[in-house]
Amino acid sequence: MIAEIITIGDEILMGQLLDSNAAYIADRLVRIGVLPRWLTTVGDEETSIETAFKTAWDRADVVIATGGLGPTHDDRTKPVLTRFFQTRLTFREDLFDQIRGRFKHRRLGMPAINREQALFPDGAQPIDNHYGTAPGIRFERNGKLFFALPGVPLEMKAMLQQGVIPQLKGKGVRVQMAFRTLRTSGISESALFERLGPLKEIEETVGIAFLPDPAGVDIRITAQGIDEGECRLRVGKAEDWLRSRIGKYIWGTDGETIEAVVGRALREKGLKIAVAESCTGGLIANRFTDVPGSSDYFERGVVAYSNRAKTELLDVPERMIQDHGAVSAEVARAMAAGVRDKAGADVGVSATGIAGPSGGTPEKPVGLVYIGYADKDGSDYRKFIFRNDRLTHKAQTAQAVFYLLWEKLKQC
Amino acid sequence: MIAEIITIGDEILMGQLLDSNAAYIADRLVRIGVLPRWLTTVGDEETSIETAFKTAWDRADVVIATGGLGPTHDDRTKPVLTRFFQTRLTFREDLFDQIRGRFKHRRLGMPAINREQALFPDGAQPIDNHYGTAPGIRFERNGKLFFALPGVPLEMKAMLQQGVIPQLKGKGVRVQMAFRTLRTSGISESALFERLGPLKEIEETVGIAFLPDPAGVDIRITAQGIDEGECRLRVGKAEDWLRSRIGKYIWGTDGETIEAVVGRALREKGLKIAVAESCTGGLIANRFTDVPGSSDYFERGVVAYSNRAKTELLDVPERMIQDHGAVSAEVARAMAAGVRDKAGADVGVSATGIAGPSGGTPEKPVGLVYIGYADKDGSDYRKFIFRNDRLTHKAQTAQAVFYLLWEKLKQC
Repeated sequence: MIAEIITIGDEILMGQLLDSNAAYIADRLVRIGVLPRWLTTVGDEETSIETAFKTAWDRADVVIATGGLGPTHDDRTKPVLTRFFQTRLTFREDLFDQIRGRFKHRRLGMPAINREQALFPDGAQPIDNHYGTAPGIRFERNGKLFFALPGVPLEMKAMLQQGVIPQLKGKGVRVQMAFRTLRTSGISESALFERLGPLKEIEETVGIAFLPDPAGVDIRITAQGIDEGECRLRVGKAEDWLRSRIGKYIWGTDGETIEAVVGRALREKGLKIAVAESCTGGLIANRFTDVPGSSDYFERGVVAYSNRAKTELLDVPERMIQDHGAVSAEVARAMAAGVRDKAGADVGVSATGIAGPSGGTPEKPVGLVYIGYADKDGSDYRKFIFRNDRLTHKAQTAQAVFYLLWEKLKQC
Repeated sequence: MIAEIITIGDEILMGQLLDSNAAYIADRLVRIGVLPRWLTTVGDEETSIETAFKTAWDRADVVIATGGLGPTHDDRTKPVLTRFFQTRLTFREDLFDQIRGRFKHRRLGMPAINREQALFPDGAQPIDNHYGTAPGIRFERNGKLFFALPGVPLEMKAMLQQGVIPQLKGKGVRVQMAFRTLRTSGISESALFERLGPLKEIEETVGIAFLPDPAGVDIRITAQGIDEGECRLRVGKAEDWLRSRIGKYIWGTDGETIEAVVGRALREKGLKIAVAESCTGGLIANRFTDVPGSSDYFERGVVAYSNRAKTELLDVPERMIQDHGAVSAEVARAMAAGVRDKAGADVGVSATGIAGPSGGTPEKPVGLVYIGYADKDGSDYRKFIFRNDRLTHKAQTAQAVFYLLWEKLKQC
């Protein structure tokens, strides 16, 4: 069963609004094994809407459209749909009662324009709208289904759940799906790919997708089949296969964040951490404290942007900054050790670099960054060159610090 | 000139990722008068991609596709495009040099697989990719244009700006548009609406949209017409009308962020700032340092999560914390004054609150927050209760601090 989702609305077509409706519907369909093959967006203009309906109806078994069902002049879905299915509108007393009821319930007078919402295409079935006044429209022809829902997310979601999903479940869709995402950092997409070798072996049983991001690469495993347990089994086998080859880069799965994974390790080991940041400017502390309960292990953060702050707050010797520069392995280590010491924490981490866009030199280019780590056994550092815009540089540096922490915590 | 945007990727088709690329491209096109008529999403599957290319090429004058250009097996855009334009791939030494250069610059070895990215379709023109290894692909046939860009937003945005938009400028329709967004904080959408009174008066000449967000409400003014200057004039008049009613809440316009606006004010006045954070956990410092050149006025940030850190780093008296609690007006003021003093800065700000989900009491519920401000004339504070999830609470608190700073800096 092939599904197509059509979103209708100028504000989405013009990029003023993200199309969260299509994503929501797609996700719900996938969960019941109905795989969308097309998402289409058109504006509030009859010719485009009609072309979109025709194209979708030709190539899909189920079409779900949202938007354009409101009471105003720019809502064109109902007239187009009526023409497309070669039928006509009839005034429906039962729908009018419902619309009137909704206004009464809200103690509001009903504007005359809402009366038109009780005009409904012959041969279609209405879908109840508990949160608004526009009923949904369902057409069934030759075993194919067409649903038109309003674009207001609250209304659309409830109607999808109650009036659409149950009908598709009952349409003999047998496909089950299982998913797993393995989250990696510290290695590029192409290097991962190379290390894995030919994927053919596992791709006979599951789908594998690489989703790169400045912070790392997610590997998504998908299995489709008739039996859900069997799908999960295949995903599990593929996960084992992947872990045996690239396990050392996988810090988490599915929706986990590395700050939550690192935080959990700190809590389990009863360790407290302190953070000294220069180029990341507070991002590392911010991500640590995004995790509920982080006050259990996060002792403090220092954003030592100026050299004075590095000396005063972190005991980095002025002489060291003069000799090696603020962006150096020495200063990164001294910052990590200094914040650990001052805070009386178990672990200290740091980052110092040139996020840009200015401030680089031939020896120390924009993008250069050193990250530091200190614990009771001493200190360590890593050097990177992240050539990106300022915000991505900050994000990559913070991710590198969390990844280094994750590696260190595994060992201790 | 009709434009179609095609997004390629299973993760978008399956609703796992919002299609922000299509919205970004659409917005950029609209700004130069090229109106998109279709947005289409397909998965990483050759038949669907080819059908989407064919449909788009038939009905549009310019097609912009994103995604599927990476080096791995699920990147199918290049082979499909090569077949679609009935050409073949040739190894391009010049592109290979660029790809190798990117790895060299980052001091990384190049995986063999990246060599394939130098295979390029005959008859197409490459579009430089400054942030990644996959070049963009441009085809021109019979006056129509086809652009294929990578799906990584950072790469796509830069390539769109440098390699696509300049080629489309001047080819747009005669419809001109003018936009202006007025950015407000410190007042709710409905309160704004009420203060403005009937919008009919200005809505005859421009469109007005309210875009609320936990950080504030954006008011978007749009004018469409034949003459650009005349559109701008109408937008300007509407802006004056709005400013005369709600001007005191408008801290910026269009793409400005409040941290950039506040940063500019600090630089102009020659003031240095220091930040002391508890519940925001580094977010305020992080936002300050997102702005290029912020090292000119941002002296330091302290994330004093523990009471010990508040006392040691900010000179907040232990007794004060015992008497009033860490979340109190007294401690907020003392934190702001303390960090200002310790840093030798002109201005200090602070935030202390209960971001949740746990940690609340009947007197001090989850969501309670105090923000502090200190300058040479003394200290001040504000109290809020933001009932939201943890991350939204952090975002709202940080925004309130920037808004307070903006108000204070206007006065001095």
